[in-house]
Amino acid sequence: MLIIITGPSGVGKTTIIKTLMKADPSLKYSVSMTTRKPRHNEKHGMDYYFVSVEDFKRMIEKNELAEWSEVYGEYYGRSKKELDELSKNYDTLVGIDIQGAMKLQKTYPHGIFIFILPKSEEALETQLRGRRTDEESSIETRLNAAIDEIKKADNFDHKVVNDVVEETAEKIKSIIIAEKCRIR
Amino acid sequence: MLIIITGPSGVGKTTIIKTLMKADPSLKYSVSMTTRKPRHNEKHGMDYYFVSVEDFKRMIEKNELAEWSEVYGEYYGRSKKELDELSKNYDTLVGIDIQGAMKLQKTYPHGIFIFILPKSEEALETQLRGRRTDEESSIETRLNAAIDEIKKADNFDHKVVNDVVEETAEKIKSIIIAEKCRIR
Repeated sequence: MLIIITGPSGVGKTTIIKTLMKADPSLKYSVSMTTRKPRHNEKHGMDYYFVSVEDFKRMIEKNELAEWSEVYGEYYGRSKKELDELSKNYDTLVGIDIQGAMKLQKTYPHGIFIFILPKSEEALETQLRGRRTDEESSIETRLNAAIDEIKKADNFDHKVVNDVVEETAEKIKSIIIAEKCRIR
Repeated sequence: MLIIITGPSGVGKTTIIKTLMKADPSLKYSVSMTTRKPRHNEKHGMDYYFVSVEDFKRMIEKNELAEWSEVYGEYYGRSKKELDELSKNYDTLVGIDIQGAMKLQKTYPHGIFIFILPKSEEALETQLRGRRTDEESSIETRLNAAIDEIKKADNFDHKVVNDVVEETAEKIKSIIIAEKCRIR
């Protein structure tokens, strides 16, 4: 089963996924690739596979990616083969931006697509500023983009407001259990 | 929100509903009407409204029932007005046979329809015999009908195998939480 956690930048997708995996070690995480530089504490193979632009472009040409996109000048994507193998055998979590999620809807229509909403615009701004890795103009751009992206929530299956992360994780866990009971 | 718990006779619908309501007192229960005699310990207004055949037929004529059916010579049904008012204000549980559930699907298409499956045919037989209120021929009839009815599970939204009742209730609780997050 493939569980796609999407939502605007800064909404807390990574923290939610870490909380879910801590509570249920049977869940697997689909590590994606990026050409951007690692942030403080990010590890290759754990948070991302950090790859070169050349390698990334080669995989695009060979059609090896389940989805890919360019966001703020950097490439993001993931191997179709790895995602197929993981999701065939495990409940697999994918943390992904909204562009990427909409692409996965086409490749994996049976995935469970969960859109994470911020508690408020203010909460999202605080989160984006808290990263301290982006310049002011970049934060403004991301915040405006995020507010715009939230309008796309209705394209997905479920939406969860991320206020207290443990409660968000509980709701996602409930969605996974319910989907296992769903008659398609 | 209207949550319809259906499944074959003897599968444990009543026990599941009682377990759910004990765990979450905010849930409401839609009490149905029947013309059959009360079983040991059943209370008017709690388990059923026990009504006369004459009263029941009058409500049918006045089109006051959300659904009704005749099962093994007895009438079962519920007031549309009461169900509308309850489900408008509360998460409302309906325990109902499969015939009735299929009728409610037409009146309440936005309800959550959960089909309860027995762990096995043997488990269902044990349960039906355990009631000790029915004659042997009646048990045989009910068991064969139940096995036949199970084939109708795929007409509903979710199915849950009732092995350990607490786990069944947990799964239903997850389905309710997930449905609140669902984007329609």
